[in-house]
Amino acid sequence: MKEEFRALATRLFEELRKQSFDGVGVTRECFSPAETAAQELIAKAAAERGLPVERDRVGNLVVTLAGRNASAPFIATGSHLDTVPRGGNYDGAAGVVAGLLALLAIRESGVKPPRPVKLIALRGEESAWFGKSWIGSHALLGRLKPADLALGRIDTGRPLREYLRDVGADVEAIERGEALLPPSRVAAFIETHIEQGPVLEAKGLPLGVVTGIYGNLRHMSVVCRGQAAHAGATPRFLRHDALVATADLVMRMDAHWARWLDQGKQLALTHGVIGTDGKEHAVSRVPGEVRFSVEIRADDSQSLLDFHSLLKREAEAVEKQRGVSFAFDNPIVNDPAPMHPRWVERLDELCERAGVPHERLASGAGHDAAVFAHAGIPTAMLFIRNARGSHNPDEGIDIEDLLLGARVLAEALVSEP
Amino acid sequence: MKEEFRALATRLFEELRKQSFDGVGVTRECFSPAETAAQELIAKAAAERGLPVERDRVGNLVVTLAGRNASAPFIATGSHLDTVPRGGNYDGAAGVVAGLLALLAIRESGVKPPRPVKLIALRGEESAWFGKSWIGSHALLGRLKPADLALGRIDTGRPLREYLRDVGADVEAIERGEALLPPSRVAAFIETHIEQGPVLEAKGLPLGVVTGIYGNLRHMSVVCRGQAAHAGATPRFLRHDALVATADLVMRMDAHWARWLDQGKQLALTHGVIGTDGKEHAVSRVPGEVRFSVEIRADDSQSLLDFHSLLKREAEAVEKQRGVSFAFDNPIVNDPAPMHPRWVERLDELCERAGVPHERLASGAGHDAAVFAHAGIPTAMLFIRNARGSHNPDEGIDIEDLLLGARVLAEALVSEP
Repeated sequence: MKEEFRALATRLFEELRKQSFDGVGVTRECFSPAETAAQELIAKAAAERGLPVERDRVGNLVVTLAGRNASAPFIATGSHLDTVPRGGNYDGAAGVVAGLLALLAIRESGVKPPRPVKLIALRGEESAWFGKSWIGSHALLGRLKPADLALGRIDTGRPLREYLRDVGADVEAIERGEALLPPSRVAAFIETHIEQGPVLEAKGLPLGVVTGIYGNLRHMSVVCRGQAAHAGATPRFLRHDALVATADLVMRMDAHWARWLDQGKQLALTHGVIGTDGKEHAVSRVPGEVRFSVEIRADDSQSLLDFHSLLKREAEAVEKQRGVSFAFDNPIVNDPAPMHPRWVERLDELCERAGVPHERLASGAGHDAAVFAHAGIPTAMLFIRNARGSHNPDEGIDIEDLLLGARVLAEALVSEP
Repeated sequence: MKEEFRALATRLFEELRKQSFDGVGVTRECFSPAETAAQELIAKAAAERGLPVERDRVGNLVVTLAGRNASAPFIATGSHLDTVPRGGNYDGAAGVVAGLLALLAIRESGVKPPRPVKLIALRGEESAWFGKSWIGSHALLGRLKPADLALGRIDTGRPLREYLRDVGADVEAIERGEALLPPSRVAAFIETHIEQGPVLEAKGLPLGVVTGIYGNLRHMSVVCRGQAAHAGATPRFLRHDALVATADLVMRMDAHWARWLDQGKQLALTHGVIGTDGKEHAVSRVPGEVRFSVEIRADDSQSLLDFHSLLKREAEAVEKQRGVSFAFDNPIVNDPAPMHPRWVERLDELCERAGVPHERLASGAGHDAAVFAHAGIPTAMLFIRNARGSHNPDEGIDIEDLLLGARVLAEALVSEP
């Protein structure tokens, strides 16, 4: 991309950092003056370059590039400008800056897009402030629950409702669950975001095409019950060891996970918590009880359910083989948000055509894009390579990767897959 | 055995239970009047049948059957009469009663044994009262540490020294570490005891011949350190999951254990404790740290050390494969007490000759016999089948099994393997 875009992106990130530096990282609270100041920086850059800017009824910033058919549903890109406390400068903002560059690039190409193209800088993506994620997109699409308006900000206790009013949002309409942006008005939503994991960095790829945003199925607590016994006097063939049984199940499922990945499935399995009971365990006692958690993530619902069935079947096999029982609590399920298949293909092609090394991958973390997808809007995502994870001051992207992302995004926004 | 012996054993157990019933089980504290009363019951039964009784310098009861060579080292049998609080009637007492029956059976056979045969009803076997096991045998063989005399009884706080004085023990000699019974005076020590585990019951065998008393090697805490990571954003190939690594090690070692048992080794492996760190674990976080315990028990020192080396080698293999590290604390080692091989053979033969179904097995729990073995005395043990474990009111032996044990013991006490 042009040197001008490189300079603009560099300056915008510098100023964003400067105005929201907290001594350690950057802090831009949801629906706060810091978030608004970030919007204004973007709005000023857009307006100075002749792109009209406005606020929608949630207080999100909207930048528009006119299209040939002004009344056709528009195509949108966007991400968020808020951050976690002492967070990084790129989680969210990179997608907004890339979107602005894409709109400018389309305009400079001289080709008038077939339909209007909008950049939406969403508010309130991070759950860190109100314990609720994706507030800006939920509110916009009529999907914020009335009870959410009473959520207090974690540091001040002041309710979300008042913060929404501060930024001029139409709280009554939001509370009614009105779709302030009717999904039928949006032809597609393409979000650019830094990868929060280490995959692209590890594989040396500047961009990733997201296949879906993981849903998850969680058992907060599974109890394996065997039989506590004297470690010296109870031989192997008479044991019902809850710990060995749990290790057995963990290893069986780890092997299944590896096989599913080999088959190209997008899935993650995590046991984050394990423990024997501190009130009765002992170094010299065969453990009679072990508790552990299970989290399955996948980019489609069927995979979640299938892998969960497999877990149950393997648990039954271990029960029979080792004379233990597994008691599963009720699973908590969050639906995955598959990206639109034709858009995934299209982004793949555009990366290819631009000669950008890339790979398809699922997003393990949640994004506003999932809210758009769940509203029935064709949705896709591009990941930009990022070192050292996200939600920390050390997030690291290369501005060249961002420029590649903006270029692919610009091509995408004027195409109809 | 004769009906008279069956009746005697039945009556002795009934009276023992009656005089030490605590409302739930039986309680005979170490070096207490309850323990002394149990001794007196045995002493009376012996004396009434013409066997001389005395107390040794620890206060243990000694019943003697004269031999042809009065000055030769004697052969001894025995066990203990104390119990844990609310314990069972047979753990300890069964071996004393079997010993008494054996001495009576030898005398009634009309064969004068080649050397004196003694029954020693040891005091203070259970660690439940002073936190120290096998006090009677340790004191007798000059192996009680001076510091042990200051141990307070768990319920009264009164020191062991005073309880020893109560029963007429030579506290000064014990404190000097004098071998009140010089090991050279004992040709062999053969202890009969109920099995504390479920093996004989499960296999339908009245008797077991003990190959050795397990020693153990313990790591109270092993820390597996990997890398905590976002469960959604961190794919399998970039994880360093401390929990999966620990499960991997557990399963590798469980498989090795099975193989060692197949090869006829006597070994037990237990991980009694496991846990992720409550301060940082989460259902959605790849666990960066898991702590667990390791206990290896074996009937010989070399097996303990070899299996421990294997553990270390497998831990290294897991470290390399999964990018984690295992930090082992200093191992705590308690030496095994192998039973005397010729005596093991001899007891095997005698069971065979008596047509008693039996099996060789190691003792996972500790016994006074280990103290005799460590003092260099040829030592062996016979286990009597027992249901429902030990140290509880539901200990269950069949009096017929005890009579079989007494019969084999009687033959053993007059033989020289």
